[in-house]
Amino acid sequence: MIRLLCAGICNTDLELLRGYYGFSGTPGHEFVGEVVVSDNRNLVGRRVVGEINLACGKCEWCKRGLGRHCPTRKVLGIVGHAGAFREYLTLPDHNLHVVPDDLPTEIAVFAEPVAAACEILDQAVIPKSEKIAVLGDGKLGLLISQVLHAAGYSVLQFGRHRDKLRIAAKKGVVTELVRKTIPVAEFGYVVDATGASRGLETAVRMVRPRGTIFMKSTVHGNVAVDTAPIIVNEITLVGSRCGRFEPSIRLLCSGAINVSDMVSDELPLSKAPAAFTRARQSGVLKVLLNPD
Amino acid sequence: MIRLLCAGICNTDLELLRGYYGFSGTPGHEFVGEVVVSDNRNLVGRRVVGEINLACGKCEWCKRGLGRHCPTRKVLGIVGHAGAFREYLTLPDHNLHVVPDDLPTEIAVFAEPVAAACEILDQAVIPKSEKIAVLGDGKLGLLISQVLHAAGYSVLQFGRHRDKLRIAAKKGVVTELVRKTIPVAEFGYVVDATGASRGLETAVRMVRPRGTIFMKSTVHGNVAVDTAPIIVNEITLVGSRCGRFEPSIRLLCSGAINVSDMVSDELPLSKAPAAFTRARQSGVLKVLLNPD
Repeated sequence: MIRLLCAGICNTDLELLRGYYGFSGTPGHEFVGEVVVSDNRNLVGRRVVGEINLACGKCEWCKRGLGRHCPTRKVLGIVGHAGAFREYLTLPDHNLHVVPDDLPTEIAVFAEPVAAACEILDQAVIPKSEKIAVLGDGKLGLLISQVLHAAGYSVLQFGRHRDKLRIAAKKGVVTELVRKTIPVAEFGYVVDATGASRGLETAVRMVRPRGTIFMKSTVHGNVAVDTAPIIVNEITLVGSRCGRFEPSIRLLCSGAINVSDMVSDELPLSKAPAAFTRARQSGVLKVLLNPD
Repeated sequence: MIRLLCAGICNTDLELLRGYYGFSGTPGHEFVGEVVVSDNRNLVGRRVVGEINLACGKCEWCKRGLGRHCPTRKVLGIVGHAGAFREYLTLPDHNLHVVPDDLPTEIAVFAEPVAAACEILDQAVIPKSEKIAVLGDGKLGLLISQVLHAAGYSVLQFGRHRDKLRIAAKKGVVTELVRKTIPVAEFGYVVDATGASRGLETAVRMVRPRGTIFMKSTVHGNVAVDTAPIIVNEITLVGSRCGRFEPSIRLLCSGAINVSDMVSDELPLSKAPAAFTRARQSGVLKVLLNPD
């Protein structure tokens, strides 16, 4: 049992509220909390973040260390397990990662989305000489560009909001406001984090033949895709979701990721409905929820 | 200059005739011919097959041996270079592969589509323990299942035509008539060769989390894809087109691929319009064109 210290509202939470996935219950899967009850005495009283997939621990996937794909998994605040937007939440001990003492709670609360950004580096061995294009300057796009930049890649981030792009630029990411023309067939690797149904099509145009596109934009309903250029140019598309927390926590400790500028607002749990309204507003990035 | 001995009608040719790609001119890119004029005396009088991409030979792609992706390439019978459905055609010497004497012309004419099937093996290192599903029992599907089977993989081919599936089954491919239910999340590797816009969706349902789908179906217009399961299950999609002729010719020589049963009809060049009509008929596989 974990006492909430801070939680973050993710786009998925906004979608759950819109009725997607037929979700009912308590949402919330980005959090920092203090362990109050555990069989593991070393955890009690410690600040923790937690992996959101509650895996069976016994299946083929779990045995391979990929409980994130366990077919019978529950998911904190998303599938069959109450989430973090309340005073107390529960997670298995082995889902938890102790937050280093010198990592502030307001930064550690980004551990889950930063892990999702880090996942790209676990899915492909990208040559360091490659320039990577990141499409989109929303929350995930800003984390992805910074994670890839911190890993030593030359990153070019495309977005529509000068103020948002500035957050990644502060850490050295080269950014570009999207105008009518985009570079065509120029990048060996492109990350679609636009969150828009047209994002994939744009990525297909920007990537070189035999290049790779990481799909980070969950879009609801069907996306219309012209598959011909994907086949003719032998493009690889890689779906990418949750990642490991270890590299994420290390990166947050290193200070390489500018998350502070991504916090648009902080509200108490009792004002969660207002916080959701705020999170939906144009130009708003991360909204945090704190205990009352 | 090459004198035509035999040519094959491909689905792409049927599409060109329907007006796709705005093509005008002589189609045809699957052929066997006899070299009649060449600077290379060793080629004159030899039977040859030919790589269809006419690359510049100087760009970054060509230098990497990937002239198939040369951005200024012409393509035999498809883009900017007259094709094989006539008495004589031309190709650069270095596009040509001499047909071994003991390989009959009617089998060698499959070198190009078999190369396209072989391309899958050049794009991914598939563990031999993996069972591969091939969707579709058209011309390309039948070649792909046989090529993968010949490479030592356990292949399960799904199709809607018992008589077509039998062609691959003769060489040991396990085949299954598609009924209403399909196996879900069961294959690490799935090849979509259905030629149908719903094929990709079916492949996404059949592949395991973190699995790979090879896209071999060129479909015209946009395909409606639900990208959510691709992202949630971290599926990789690999567009796949032309391949190298060397492994293709070796395979055809080995007798491992049953192409003879795929020939539905042979007509003389002068009856090419009738041959196209025949090639479009339901149940028809390869239609060959011979000189008059």
